[in-house]
Amino acid sequence: MTDYTTQVYPVIWHNDSVSLIDQTRLPNEYAIVEIHRSEDMAQAIKTMIVRGAPAIGVAAAYGMYLGAREIETSDRHEFLESLEKVAQLLRSTRPTAVNLFWAIGRMLKTAYETLGTVEEIKQTLFETAQTINLEDLQTCQAIGDNGLAVLPRTPQKLTLLTHCNAGALATAGYGTALGVVRSAWREGRLARLFADETRPRLQGAKLTTWECVQEAIPVTLITDNMAAHCMKQGLIHAVVVGADRIAANGDTANKIGTYSVAIAAKAHNIPFFVAAPLSTVDFELSDGSQIPIEERNPEEIYRVGDTNLTPLGVDFYNPAFDVTPAELITAIITEHGAFAPSELAKCQSQLVM
Amino acid sequence: MTDYTTQVYPVIWHNDSVSLIDQTRLPNEYAIVEIHRSEDMAQAIKTMIVRGAPAIGVAAAYGMYLGAREIETSDRHEFLESLEKVAQLLRSTRPTAVNLFWAIGRMLKTAYETLGTVEEIKQTLFETAQTINLEDLQTCQAIGDNGLAVLPRTPQKLTLLTHCNAGALATAGYGTALGVVRSAWREGRLARLFADETRPRLQGAKLTTWECVQEAIPVTLITDNMAAHCMKQGLIHAVVVGADRIAANGDTANKIGTYSVAIAAKAHNIPFFVAAPLSTVDFELSDGSQIPIEERNPEEIYRVGDTNLTPLGVDFYNPAFDVTPAELITAIITEHGAFAPSELAKCQSQLVM
Repeated sequence: MTDYTTQVYPVIWHNDSVSLIDQTRLPNEYAIVEIHRSEDMAQAIKTMIVRGAPAIGVAAAYGMYLGAREIETSDRHEFLESLEKVAQLLRSTRPTAVNLFWAIGRMLKTAYETLGTVEEIKQTLFETAQTINLEDLQTCQAIGDNGLAVLPRTPQKLTLLTHCNAGALATAGYGTALGVVRSAWREGRLARLFADETRPRLQGAKLTTWECVQEAIPVTLITDNMAAHCMKQGLIHAVVVGADRIAANGDTANKIGTYSVAIAAKAHNIPFFVAAPLSTVDFELSDGSQIPIEERNPEEIYRVGDTNLTPLGVDFYNPAFDVTPAELITAIITEHGAFAPSELAKCQSQLVM
Repeated sequence: MTDYTTQVYPVIWHNDSVSLIDQTRLPNEYAIVEIHRSEDMAQAIKTMIVRGAPAIGVAAAYGMYLGAREIETSDRHEFLESLEKVAQLLRSTRPTAVNLFWAIGRMLKTAYETLGTVEEIKQTLFETAQTINLEDLQTCQAIGDNGLAVLPRTPQKLTLLTHCNAGALATAGYGTALGVVRSAWREGRLARLFADETRPRLQGAKLTTWECVQEAIPVTLITDNMAAHCMKQGLIHAVVVGADRIAANGDTANKIGTYSVAIAAKAHNIPFFVAAPLSTVDFELSDGSQIPIEERNPEEIYRVGDTNLTPLGVDFYNPAFDVTPAELITAIITEHGAFAPSELAKCQSQLVM
């Protein structure tokens, strides 16, 4: 058995309630919010106290259990009717988060399929939420260890570069890209992590560095435009990033700036890895040109804290993601192993079996 | 004759004193500081009310004249002795600004070489400061027009990308990279400028957009990590940047992030231009590896306005410049014409003649 330890769990069951790390206050303040009721969980998801698709899924699953235990009836039919309302409330929080709908659906299905008393259904719902939490953690840990296996053999102590926050905070724990970083650190293969600050929302500066500091992983923060210069100076041995959606050919949509890092890595012959659960692969899309790119509020660019950076009269362009073509990706690291982008199709048939 | 107009002059002689645009307050406040005495000019240079090497040179020249007219003697020897003290005061403001020393030296030389009364020397010093100002403006205008001649022929209306602020604010007026942008705008060849915000100091967000807004040049601000994505989408027809120092082989040191943009431009077959006066070329350096890279205060990365972005315990790396190798540069645009990097040597012999 491998011993996994991490101090960062954004969503945990503790003292008969859910403890969330308040991610809106990081990194300047570390605060735990205790959630006792499903309504409060819906509010926490809506206000981004918890964020990151897998972490939202886990939070919603616990939200369903909290809602279930609030229902005061022993009538199975009445209970299920009330539980549907809880599901509706939680679904309404973040309209585009796929994991949210998936987790709520799985909890509802569990309720309908459980025979016995209402109390027995409640108990099964609790166990299912715990399972969803554990499964996501195990997926991340598997990604981390599979990534470790494909990192460059030399030097023994690597310096890795990451972009944005594909970390414990975005998952049940351990993270995807930061899962690879954690596995490398655990096995003595990591000298240091370089983190892009990741404008405009600064998830690298605010969240990735915070995660590293919690576990004493040496981390150097740079602005996004310094990555290529660092590569040229020989400071970076490999790049590891997460993914928001991966097309069947391996083209990968991820946080804006990922493409820029991938081009620079290629120019310096530095391996570029994408770390993500296989569920991130959308086999319906043949290539990345079909992935829609969300454009977000320009205020993310022109305002930092209370400071306005620009004069009036300026236009803005704020794409939230970009697409890195498969030819720039050395391997896609999943919980089932690491694959060249061209091998993803093979993976799909494995999953069907 | 070409008609040059611009509304942005960071240093002008007006009402018997020097008017400076206070660049520390841009873009949120436009304030003119009137400088009547050499001591105040020294303070203005030190506190970066005026910044940008050519603009500092012009400011220092006027500072020498202000100091000269404060000297109350009709004895030539006494006058020159006092003027040396003014020079010393102005030299002490920004120890590494080459143009500062050059401008002060030229003013001193003028004083020593002028025959006649102290009043006649003072008058000649005033005329020399005006000449230094005008020459820098003409150099920038020539760079702009020479750049216009080498921009892509199609489409008729180009979208250009720039990084940092190589603008009117950094020179006597018109700018170098922004000089090319202005010439293109004047001739109806510019559809729009894309400006990288240029972390960490945000000169693109704060100064380049401000200059464009003054002259109603359409400008779109992006974060640095969006440039490659914009290129992939076909939004950018050419890149124009300034230079801090150019080696004899054409390797170019410029604001951090320039190298990253150059790699992305090459990957998308987009021409990449460097616009700078020929005096920026350091023929003593055979290539860019000999250019020292200044590392600056990490506070520039972790603090924006009053906001701290990172937790305690994080390391930082803050190189102020990077070096773009000559093979990524389509042409270097100077006041004497645009040259392929490999043609720079030829330029040197022209200058010697």
